[in-house]
Amino acid sequence: MDKYEKVIALARRRGFIWPAFELYGGAAGFYDYGPLGAPLKRKIEDLWREFFVIKEGFCEIECPTIGVEDIYVASGHLSGFSDPLTECKECGEIYRADHLIKHIIEVPDALSGEEIYTVIQENDIFCPECSGDLSQIYEFNLMFKTAIGPGSRQAGYLRPETAQGMFINFPRLLRYYRDRLPFGAVQIGKSYRNEISPRQGVIRLREFSQAEAEIFINPRDKSHPRFDEVEDLKLILYSEEDQEREGGQPREMTIKEAVDKRIIAHQTLAYYVARTYQFLMEAGLSRDRLRFRQHKKDEMAHYAADCWDAEASLERFGWIELVGVADRTDYDLRSHMAQSQTNLSVFVPFDKPRRQEKLVVKPDMKKLGPIFRNKAKAVAEALKSLDIEELEKETISVVVDGETVEIGSDLVSFEMVEETIRGEEIVPHVIEPSFGIDRILYTVLEHSCYEEMVDEETRTVLKLRPKVVPIQVAVLPLMDRDELMAPAEEITDVLKARGIYVEYDSSGSIGRRYRRNDEVGTPYSITVDYKTLEDKTVTIRDRDTMAQVRAGVDELPDTILALLREELEFGEAGVPLRS
Amino acid sequence: MDKYEKVIALARRRGFIWPAFELYGGAAGFYDYGPLGAPLKRKIEDLWREFFVIKEGFCEIECPTIGVEDIYVASGHLSGFSDPLTECKECGEIYRADHLIKHIIEVPDALSGEEIYTVIQENDIFCPECSGDLSQIYEFNLMFKTAIGPGSRQAGYLRPETAQGMFINFPRLLRYYRDRLPFGAVQIGKSYRNEISPRQGVIRLREFSQAEAEIFINPRDKSHPRFDEVEDLKLILYSEEDQEREGGQPREMTIKEAVDKRIIAHQTLAYYVARTYQFLMEAGLSRDRLRFRQHKKDEMAHYAADCWDAEASLERFGWIELVGVADRTDYDLRSHMAQSQTNLSVFVPFDKPRRQEKLVVKPDMKKLGPIFRNKAKAVAEALKSLDIEELEKETISVVVDGETVEIGSDLVSFEMVEETIRGEEIVPHVIEPSFGIDRILYTVLEHSCYEEMVDEETRTVLKLRPKVVPIQVAVLPLMDRDELMAPAEEITDVLKARGIYVEYDSSGSIGRRYRRNDEVGTPYSITVDYKTLEDKTVTIRDRDTMAQVRAGVDELPDTILALLREELEFGEAGVPLRS
Repeated sequence: MDKYEKVIALARRRGFIWPAFELYGGAAGFYDYGPLGAPLKRKIEDLWREFFVIKEGFCEIECPTIGVEDIYVASGHLSGFSDPLTECKECGEIYRADHLIKHIIEVPDALSGEEIYTVIQENDIFCPECSGDLSQIYEFNLMFKTAIGPGSRQAGYLRPETAQGMFINFPRLLRYYRDRLPFGAVQIGKSYRNEISPRQGVIRLREFSQAEAEIFINPRDKSHPRFDEVEDLKLILYSEEDQEREGGQPREMTIKEAVDKRIIAHQTLAYYVARTYQFLMEAGLSRDRLRFRQHKKDEMAHYAADCWDAEASLERFGWIELVGVADRTDYDLRSHMAQSQTNLSVFVPFDKPRRQEKLVVKPDMKKLGPIFRNKAKAVAEALKSLDIEELEKETISVVVDGETVEIGSDLVSFEMVEETIRGEEIVPHVIEPSFGIDRILYTVLEHSCYEEMVDEETRTVLKLRPKVVPIQVAVLPLMDRDELMAPAEEITDVLKARGIYVEYDSSGSIGRRYRRNDEVGTPYSITVDYKTLEDKTVTIRDRDTMAQVRAGVDELPDTILALLREELEFGEAGVPLRS
Repeated sequence: MDKYEKVIALARRRGFIWPAFELYGGAAGFYDYGPLGAPLKRKIEDLWREFFVIKEGFCEIECPTIGVEDIYVASGHLSGFSDPLTECKECGEIYRADHLIKHIIEVPDALSGEEIYTVIQENDIFCPECSGDLSQIYEFNLMFKTAIGPGSRQAGYLRPETAQGMFINFPRLLRYYRDRLPFGAVQIGKSYRNEISPRQGVIRLREFSQAEAEIFINPRDKSHPRFDEVEDLKLILYSEEDQEREGGQPREMTIKEAVDKRIIAHQTLAYYVARTYQFLMEAGLSRDRLRFRQHKKDEMAHYAADCWDAEASLERFGWIELVGVADRTDYDLRSHMAQSQTNLSVFVPFDKPRRQEKLVVKPDMKKLGPIFRNKAKAVAEALKSLDIEELEKETISVVVDGETVEIGSDLVSFEMVEETIRGEEIVPHVIEPSFGIDRILYTVLEHSCYEEMVDEETRTVLKLRPKVVPIQVAVLPLMDRDELMAPAEEITDVLKARGIYVEYDSSGSIGRRYRRNDEVGTPYSITVDYKTLEDKTVTIRDRDTMAQVRAGVDELPDTILALLREELEFGEAGVPLRS
């Protein structure tokens, strides 16, 4: 059993993650979050909110998951979000055509459908199932399609990303922020990708959750005012250059160094790479299994200026992408401007108004009128478009309706005037940190899960961080007797009233109950025994060290809260017991 | 402008609710929640969690929004979740056929398609748009359909309710709760309903959010252990009998009275009606615009034992359903048992094991064998199915393969034995409180919104409850001068660090800023002025009364938190100022 299987078996047995629709045979790429998985997911999302909504001050919005066609025409998903397929002419099985030639062509993504088909034919590739002939290649769009209302008059698509919701709401968001850049908007919610035949378990889902921030900035200034807060942070970067260079390796460096050496394009992008790192650390990823990899030119979207993926190392799957932090330039807003015929630019005032010389041309209409009659207006317009050199000639030539017309210099005057310009119209650039919540959740489980031998038995521990753990405290009467269960239930109620997630458990031996709680990550277990009845103290046990202290019942809520907030060392939580 | 228009105009202007996809012309039945709407929605959901997850102790799960076909075969949505349509043969416009005959037939839901068509023909009903002929009636299924994977091999449906996720996960949930009833599971998430042409704004959505609890109980005991906590609660009930009776009106009564008089079917249903009432009150609904209406026989699902809707009164739409609380009996689990061929019953132990007499028949195979040869086994089986009177006869007759066989009483012995029965297999009943979050959110806005004249100007107030309000405090420097803005920003940071949702606002006159905050429901505004610089005090203003007190900066976070938790009267928050 490899680590993935072990983690999934635990996740399944204890109610973190379940394959969906199992009662009806299941469907690849769909999972349920169970009674422990759903709160873990929600807490990861809340932690993300703490970073991006509370600390960064971005607003959160919630848009429909179904979208109309125009959005995905503009975003390019309708034409470009597809995989090349081939079908067996004998058995009808469908395959990703590029996957069938992977052993022959290193980067099959770059090939057209026809080119892939040629490779298939030239290399005698047949159906892996029945050895039948394979069909021509066709593109399969990965958006789930549906129809809005009866008939097929209006197509609807399940969104492939939450980001478009922020882009199409840009005018309203701009108004909400009183027309000032920069600002950010975020969304946490479901997105969909109709994978051909997902085979990587919880890593490749057809329905998944994203947390995305779209930060709209002035392209003339990509510095970040709070860069100094993160500049000394050290993280492992795997730059494009290091990836391309023979023997190049990921390197540890500070954020400041990365910007100074132009490894990361600019401060703002680097700032969000740093915040992403801090978020993943607080969520409970293992530092030495995390790196930031820069997109190579050939994998980066054509419009992106720079893009860094946070990648985690998983035992079965190797390095997988959890987060992408990209400078998407003005691509998204310009695409929607073109598709919607709406101006999405922002008037950005200069720090100081600028004075600028401007040529003002004044055709003498009183004189032009009688001479050119119904052409006089066209002649005047033509004069206005001339530059100063043309106007300074004695006889001025303009072309009107394909005819050259000569005009005496007395028929037009002109002057240079100074005008004040207060700012300019700008299409903002977008910085996008985009998080895959499900992959982060699985990685948190895999990175926190370990086994050790204790008393000749295997102890499985989920070393979840207190911020994301579904059960924060277990309350365990030593035996299931009324005189112990009553005070234990009372303690449970008191802790719940303080907002602590408590699990009361009275069934099975105390050792077994400790193990059960270790396995789901419960950081602290409280045991109520006969001594509790005498002196109002309980035993608190620490998940990681298995150390125990004796603490007073009355202070218990404060003690537990302080432990969970990591404001109190476990040894200080009570009188240490010898194990 | 009616109240709906007023509320929607405010909601739109201030970023609560926006019609979706407006950049591309919009689509009926889809809305965005903006920067203030999304947190309001999230807080309503969190309040719901507080009631049903924390206090009731139900677990929360999260299932995919796309489901496979079998689920909706079992649930009945594939065959029964549809509206009758007719199409104009001239212009192609599509209509709800039952709506076209509403003025002729009072309850058109009860008619078949053919019957509706007959009514249309007999009453000379034509296309309301172009007076063209209308087509035969066809049923349009209201589930959004899509395809999972390439081709149309596997159909997928966007779930019409979250409930099915709990039903199909019943075996796992039962295991999670260690095979013991009762238990509950909840889900908060998106559901979908492909309305023909939704015309009621935010009241009828194609994509909406539900919060549903499915509580699995032993049908032999529908009492509730915590009934006493709610039995004295008084609420307005509109029973089926009062609806049917000439002049019958909704009546106020206690929950206990409703159960004692068998108006509400049983304690458990009544308990959740009461909790629903409490939740809606805390969310901020107006008590006198809320009632609980019992489903009439002809509107209740055929399988339901009893069902009560929480209905709110809205100025434009009248009484609309926000919540349904139903006893769904064992319908859901039995449907999935049949469709999946899986046993979904629960072994429920008796309080005390029961002793029961049982007849044990022992055919003497040694004697039967030689006599009946290859028929001996069938004869023995036939003997085992006899009752005691047959066995006591001297010659026993059994029919084997259509042939009567006579057997001497010496060939078979029997005895009555006592056996212990520890319990029975039961298919649980389901109690379902099902909440429509979007409608609740809109009702909260409409019920909290009022206007009053203050200083000859209209003051618009959103009297949101502190638990759900998006902005809890506004911090306002009296003027936008550095010496006032610096301490105001500092106060903002301190309050944020304590987890308070703060909005800093320095633009516009102080009066205008107060009004802006009244309009979005900010309960308290803090003003920083020159006196603040001298004595470290600020003015706190109360949204509802517009009263002001002067309070110390150092105690501000505690003061504000106490006010928000309603532990402190506003008058006690500082030294009252004369207005």
